[in-house]
Amino acid sequence: MAYIELNNELQGIRGLMKYSPVSAYPLLLLAETLLQGESTLSKGEREVIATYVSGKNHCKFCQYSHGAAAAHHLHISLQDIEEIKFHADVTPLLSEKMKALLNIAGKVQQGGKSVMPQDIEAAKEMGATDKEIHDTVLIAAAFCMFNRYVDGLNTWADDSPADYVDASTRMAEQGYLRKETMKMIGREVE
Amino acid sequence: MAYIELNNELQGIRGLMKYSPVSAYPLLLLAETLLQGESTLSKGEREVIATYVSGKNHCKFCQYSHGAAAAHHLHISLQDIEEIKFHADVTPLLSEKMKALLNIAGKVQQGGKSVMPQDIEAAKEMGATDKEIHDTVLIAAAFCMFNRYVDGLNTWADDSPADYVDASTRMAEQGYLRKETMKMIGREVE
Repeated sequence: MAYIELNNELQGIRGLMKYSPVSAYPLLLLAETLLQGESTLSKGEREVIATYVSGKNHCKFCQYSHGAAAAHHLHISLQDIEEIKFHADVTPLLSEKMKALLNIAGKVQQGGKSVMPQDIEAAKEMGATDKEIHDTVLIAAAFCMFNRYVDGLNTWADDSPADYVDASTRMAEQGYLRKETMKMIGREVE
Repeated sequence: MAYIELNNELQGIRGLMKYSPVSAYPLLLLAETLLQGESTLSKGEREVIATYVSGKNHCKFCQYSHGAAAAHHLHISLQDIEEIKFHADVTPLLSEKMKALLNIAGKVQQGGKSVMPQDIEAAKEMGATDKEIHDTVLIAAAFCMFNRYVDGLNTWADDSPADYVDASTRMAEQGYLRKETMKMIGREVE
């Protein structure tokens, strides 16, 4: 049960967004910009970064919801997502560039100062551009925020990855500023 | 020197925002909402939370810039800010409620799951409302993002806290969406 009275039954960050719609909007706009906006990293690759960091932070809601979104975009299974989370450095499911970017994301999860010049160099050698490295660091940093928001207030979350598929598929297809969400935070557009 | 070519000489997050104006806007909107928007925590108290977490993350740019903003709002010295950062549990500069909220912020800095029911209970006993606990957790989480963005890309920052006073005073007085910043990210309003 959440540490504060949310007055709603929604799980994870959705309960927090309904409780505090004023802060929900910039958070959703950030998620939309980072995960669905223009980038040379695909939407699936960016959801993988979000999932990987959320896994390292042991945030159940974020790793399962973004994991299901990543699986949808990449046309892979939830089992494949588990392989990526736990064997990112060796799995054939990831390109060498993505492996190097996830190494950077993992360092960001530990702390900004954990990213070393050789981590950046390794990603560049695998073809990552400066902007892709930037985007990776910012997505990883953002999920260190989202994970802490969700778990620091002890929100509840479904235990089974399969239970996230329907909502995450809508999220993947319609984005983070979709009508249903905007309505929930009182920003319904005509 | 930053790990990527920013093509500008600005320090800390300002260099990153100029480099990536599309992501800068939601980040600035979030900072404005959390630190300058409506709250029963004063602007000074919220800047103290930002400073405290940034200190724990050893992020020079964030702790000095938000520390100077906190000092401005609270009419205290930069030396007082150092006392708050390093002796938050005993300093007479903070109310008992703020001490309990900073304890929660420190737990969030370690990780969302580090916040324990007794941390929340202690804050409630000192008069913190649910919304104040919510805002504390989200501000602390947000600075775990900002700090990682700034340091994960190895941006530069002035060494002396006094060098941040002028810019931070403008930031404190005019907010995070001020004209000069909007112009920098190409969102100049007439």
